[in-house]
Amino acid sequence: MNAVRPVMQLKGAGSAMRMTRILGEQELRQIVRATGLHALMDEVISTLEYELEHFDPANTELRKREGFQYQHPHPGVLEWMPVMQVGRHAVIKLVGYNPRSPEELGLPTILSSLSLYDVTTGHLRAVCDGTFPTALRTGAASAVASRLLAREDSRVLGLVGCGAQAVTQAHALSRVFPLGRVLVHDIAPEAMRSFARRVAFLGLEVVAVPLTRVEQEADILCTATSVAVGAGPVVSGRLIKAHLHINAVGSDLPGKTELPLEMLRRALVCPDYLPQAVVEGECQQLEPGEIGPSLFELTRSPEQWRSHRDGLTVFDSTGFSLEDKVVLEVILAHAERLGVGRLLQVESMAEDPKDPYGFLQETATCLKAAPAV
Amino acid sequence: MNAVRPVMQLKGAGSAMRMTRILGEQELRQIVRATGLHALMDEVISTLEYELEHFDPANTELRKREGFQYQHPHPGVLEWMPVMQVGRHAVIKLVGYNPRSPEELGLPTILSSLSLYDVTTGHLRAVCDGTFPTALRTGAASAVASRLLAREDSRVLGLVGCGAQAVTQAHALSRVFPLGRVLVHDIAPEAMRSFARRVAFLGLEVVAVPLTRVEQEADILCTATSVAVGAGPVVSGRLIKAHLHINAVGSDLPGKTELPLEMLRRALVCPDYLPQAVVEGECQQLEPGEIGPSLFELTRSPEQWRSHRDGLTVFDSTGFSLEDKVVLEVILAHAERLGVGRLLQVESMAEDPKDPYGFLQETATCLKAAPAV
Repeated sequence: MNAVRPVMQLKGAGSAMRMTRILGEQELRQIVRATGLHALMDEVISTLEYELEHFDPANTELRKREGFQYQHPHPGVLEWMPVMQVGRHAVIKLVGYNPRSPEELGLPTILSSLSLYDVTTGHLRAVCDGTFPTALRTGAASAVASRLLAREDSRVLGLVGCGAQAVTQAHALSRVFPLGRVLVHDIAPEAMRSFARRVAFLGLEVVAVPLTRVEQEADILCTATSVAVGAGPVVSGRLIKAHLHINAVGSDLPGKTELPLEMLRRALVCPDYLPQAVVEGECQQLEPGEIGPSLFELTRSPEQWRSHRDGLTVFDSTGFSLEDKVVLEVILAHAERLGVGRLLQVESMAEDPKDPYGFLQETATCLKAAPAV
Repeated sequence: MNAVRPVMQLKGAGSAMRMTRILGEQELRQIVRATGLHALMDEVISTLEYELEHFDPANTELRKREGFQYQHPHPGVLEWMPVMQVGRHAVIKLVGYNPRSPEELGLPTILSSLSLYDVTTGHLRAVCDGTFPTALRTGAASAVASRLLAREDSRVLGLVGCGAQAVTQAHALSRVFPLGRVLVHDIAPEAMRSFARRVAFLGLEVVAVPLTRVEQEADILCTATSVAVGAGPVVSGRLIKAHLHINAVGSDLPGKTELPLEMLRRALVCPDYLPQAVVEGECQQLEPGEIGPSLFELTRSPEQWRSHRDGLTVFDSTGFSLEDKVVLEVILAHAERLGVGRLLQVESMAEDPKDPYGFLQETATCLKAAPAV
């Protein structure tokens, strides 16, 4: 697989430029069925690799996460992550993180949605579920990083934390490494038990083992836990293979980290997006001088860092807006090609922009409330 | 009219909590027809007044506008304005401002859309056109300010700039003052000519006159022009009534102002939202000590500023997120009550949140692309 920008591009102006394309679960299912899940993951991986390698701040403007934190009725956050492709479009992902949602409301802990706006008009071009795209791109990011930092013959994948993210970590890594077995561990027995079923489509040997065995035998290790703030680390870092590469996926809040400081200090630690990683990633444990090249630098000069594949390396994955942009662009291009999505007119595009009431057609008949029928 | 919070409230949890309500032009038309345009404007005015008077930063978190500015392919901005009602919902308005859109794309200069998210889940509850709500709330804000700063017997309204905003300025002010005539001026003859038709539903005498006559005869003056950055002021401020109240609506960019500095200096200048007004409103011309009470302070202590009604007063209206929240809440409550809006499921709410591919139902059948039909 090479880092090539897919030929397919998002369409520009056209008859659909006044409509908003809505992509929910049902539409995403149609797209995956038409493209194939493996091909879609491969495309996200290669497109992300391309975008990272060719990243130019004059063409792509990134913002780090911002949001509202609150304590009532329970602690939670609502965050947004804007990114702009100059002259083309901007993507804003909204993420709600609410640990009480499952128990109290029967909803997932995290809900998210992606909106894409045409930069040159402000038009809301698409609204898309965020859960599946986020899982895809988080897996893809680890695949990109692992290809740069792990040994090419890595065969044993270790997973600490067997939730949703672990599924796409295994999927993405299986696309770029000759994985033979997956060793998994989770403090929740049910999550550990059900994992093999959830990744059955990969056809890999999945073995639930004690944490120490995951650490000892893994060539590549992914940590994706919901460890509480201040309760980390989740791995010991004691008996490990000399060439271990870790994708540290779980840390996403100040104070939430998964790896021991001494382990980070003897590793080459590569953040996805430094301004975010020093606030909420493993990098928050480190001094600036202890942090290695970012994913941008790695993709631009892979040879420079090749020798590190034989030592301990860490990809500090906090998840950032460029990844969201890439995955939404890939999905939306397929949606447009396949004609998938509900097209609705959201914005008013009145014939006379000087008349904000023009869309009422006969304003006079709208002055008073219509009689109840 | 008193500042009472409407009885109708947005619904909380329920069966619709997994759906996203889409409100476009057609749905807004249905809502206006059912509620009546006058009643809707009255409700936005009174709700905004209530929210301003009872504003508590512990309950409502405001953010000033942020965004992407760009120069290619032509200068423009894409901005967002988040606001959160703690424990309830957050509203984010996205606004695209692109002066070339009408000529090059046949689209309005400004496109905008409003999104409302449940804070405690992150759920995208509604997406709504932004044009009509923005026009309504900008008119309503001037009505609130003018009731506090203009003489109650104001009969002559002057409008400088006869675009879309002028329509809702006239409408909103006609709801709270015994207006007899409206004197209008615009440097574009067509805009001036067509204005009477656009506000015919108000049944007011509309007279197109030279700028000096607008200034001389108005009791209340609204400036809502698209004067270029650095090209202001647009009014002279020379021969005016001693009790003139001005709603300065047009300034919305650094360097874009409509009123002469010496006029501002002899007026009580009241910004809507100070952090924004000092950047992009008339207040950018003033030193901190020259700026009067904000709209929040005015609504809380109206008696304290009553004497200023006999002198020159200016409402520096930049338009801010609290206004957007109010108007969307009012519209959405009607939409829910009336059952108006297209309800779509956007977010994935899979039965097993640990399985990001669960929504594919049979993952195995989705691995490869479906054969083209």
